Amino acid sequence: MSWELTEDDLPDLARGAALLGTGGGGDPYVGHLLVREAIREHGPVTVLDPDDLDDDTLVIPTAQMGAPTVVHEKLPRGTEPVAALRALEAHLGRRAGATMPIECGGINSMIPLVVAARTGLPVVDADGMGRAFPELQMETFAVYGVPGSPMVVAGERGETTIIDTGADNARMEWLARGITIRLGGVAHIAEYPMTGAQVKRTAVPRTLSLARTVGRTLRQARQRSADPIAALAEALRDTLYGHLRVLFRGKVTDVERRTEAGFARGRAAAVSFDGRHELELMFQNEHLVALVDGRARCVVPDLVCVLESEQAEPITTESLRYGQRITVVGISTPALMRTPEALAVFGPAAFGLPYAFRPVEEAA
Amino acid sequence: MSWELTEDDLPDLARGAALLGTGGGGDPYVGHLLVREAIREHGPVTVLDPDDLDDDTLVIPTAQMGAPTVVHEKLPRGTEPVAALRALEAHLGRRAGATMPIECGGINSMIPLVVAARTGLPVVDADGMGRAFPELQMETFAVYGVPGSPMVVAGERGETTIIDTGADNARMEWLARGITIRLGGVAHIAEYPMTGAQVKRTAVPRTLSLARTVGRTLRQARQRSADPIAALAEALRDTLYGHLRVLFRGKVTDVERRTEAGFARGRAAAVSFDGRHELELMFQNEHLVALVDGRARCVVPDLVCVLESEQAEPITTESLRYGQRITVVGISTPALMRTPEALAVFGPAAFGLPYAFRPVEEAA
Repeated sequence: MSWELTEDDLPDLARGAALLGTGGGGDPYVGHLLVREAIREHGPVTVLDPDDLDDDTLVIPTAQMGAPTVVHEKLPRGTEPVAALRALEAHLGRRAGATMPIECGGINSMIPLVVAARTGLPVVDADGMGRAFPELQMETFAVYGVPGSPMVVAGERGETTIIDTGADNARMEWLARGITIRLGGVAHIAEYPMTGAQVKRTAVPRTLSLARTVGRTLRQARQRSADPIAALAEALRDTLYGHLRVLFRGKVTDVERRTEAGFARGRAAAVSFDGRHELELMFQNEHLVALVDGRARCVVPDLVCVLESEQAEPITTESLRYGQRITVVGISTPALMRTPEALAVFGPAAFGLPYAFRPVEEAA
Repeated sequence: MSWELTEDDLPDLARGAALLGTGGGGDPYVGHLLVREAIREHGPVTVLDPDDLDDDTLVIPTAQMGAPTVVHEKLPRGTEPVAALRALEAHLGRRAGATMPIECGGINSMIPLVVAARTGLPVVDADGMGRAFPELQMETFAVYGVPGSPMVVAGERGETTIIDTGADNARMEWLARGITIRLGGVAHIAEYPMTGAQVKRTAVPRTLSLARTVGRTLRQARQRSADPIAALAEALRDTLYGHLRVLFRGKVTDVERRTEAGFARGRAAAVSFDGRHELELMFQNEHLVALVDGRARCVVPDLVCVLESEQAEPITTESLRYGQRITVVGISTPALMRTPEALAVFGPAAFGLPYAFRPVEEAA
């Protein structure tokens, strides 16, 4: 079902997207502010259900690219992703009928809403990762045959670059990453131009709605002093993300984080409140694996979500700190993200991790 | 006067371009081989005098980009610069009527000939540097108001990127350099698309003819055992490069060279044969200044040419070696390269050098 997104939806959506982004996808607060400003100026945004999308409509996904650690220090104006979309339209010689998120997570659930508000285009209720991933080839679009090229990388000074690497999406990522670094570590992109029919075939559906539901569930549970984790498990049960498992509760004892090659990479360790269990998290912008007492309990692409213990507020990888009290949950991902083709593109081996993928509902 | 370039012209042209390139512009031997192969396959190339160029013809200059030290190890196929030109044509929605060198030097006098042979386009007898320079904004085109954007950077795997930085040619260089590094240190480009009228107003004319003349003069002097430097001075006298001064004769005592940020940077020292004078050369891909006993005798944009002593063979900056016996000459450049606007873009201050420009005919 299509719906109209207003300023009032934003806090829930931002919180839900932060959770689904598994610690990555950028700062949800920054994204929230950008959308609020755009909606106040231009009015509400239509969130278009994939079922309501014409098969031949041109959809151009938009996003921010760069290390979250840099985004903290370089706030966008909000016009950059519109410039990226317009440059891709000009190159293709066609106008877009909608934009769409490329991932479900912090700022990148928000950027297409900024574009939608500023251009009057609807935003499709779907995305290409079903969570957040650090690299541009890690898209269900790519897994199921939509090329990322041509794509546009736009800088803060109005510069645009159009990349065309044919069907080689990893090469596209490599070049776009290099350009983003050259632009100062953050840029805005328009990529994977596709038809409505391709959206229906390759995208993870209704993840904006899901993010709003997740955020609302957490907020309402807090308001009535209920257990937010239990409420979340209940809310997810009948969605494509049906299984939630609590993996760990404890206190952060160590965080090792570095910004290298345009990514925020690192690991974190925690010890359980009773001191008897140890957690290790590995991340590249997003959390990739949760090891409890040395055993992999939740492995990418399933969601490793780190929440602050009291209020279940999602914690991004760049906000992890020594001493934080955390609850770590694993959430199952939709079937189209767990196929062999999908795991080849964004499963543990794609990140160089020595763990086999096992669905969190079995491994946890 | 327009003329037809055949395989027989190539050795003279390569040698002359190497000299005018002041040690940069890439390896002339590699370029020579690429053109020879293209001419053998596709036939001779028309070298079009600027006077014979229609004012409204679209001219797309083509070149190789990257550190000469890398080109040594990554030979191009010859199709890459054609791909760059074609991608820029497609983006502009117009076909080129000619290509042109962006600089006069080693490989970049040759790349447009490869494009011309492979496409059947003529190559305009002119260029945008009147020598070689290390950066893309250092063009007489830019000095006199032609923007470099949109430009294409093409990689060896068929990837293309189209950069548009509006009128900011230094920003274009910055992004193109980053992409070139990302592509492995060498790429092929099409940039500064312009009309025939703009070529006539902004390009340094007849530098392909000049390179052939320089190369032929050196060869013929060797054949008749005459002094090649004296012959060269005589041949240049009535051209736009009218003044040649011998700055130094001696032996290389030290070379410091590093490939950094996509450039070959460094300095070299030499001592005169009688041991009484010292030379210091500074280069960034190309030679920028020649100091004799600590005084600047020839400063960029005037040409600092390093020649092997016996045969007056030009030595590229990446081929400078300890113990080489060299003759260093300074050559004056055309008036349009010495205006205040031109010196602001490619004079000594543009390279961070603490020397004022003085015409070599006065400073030497």
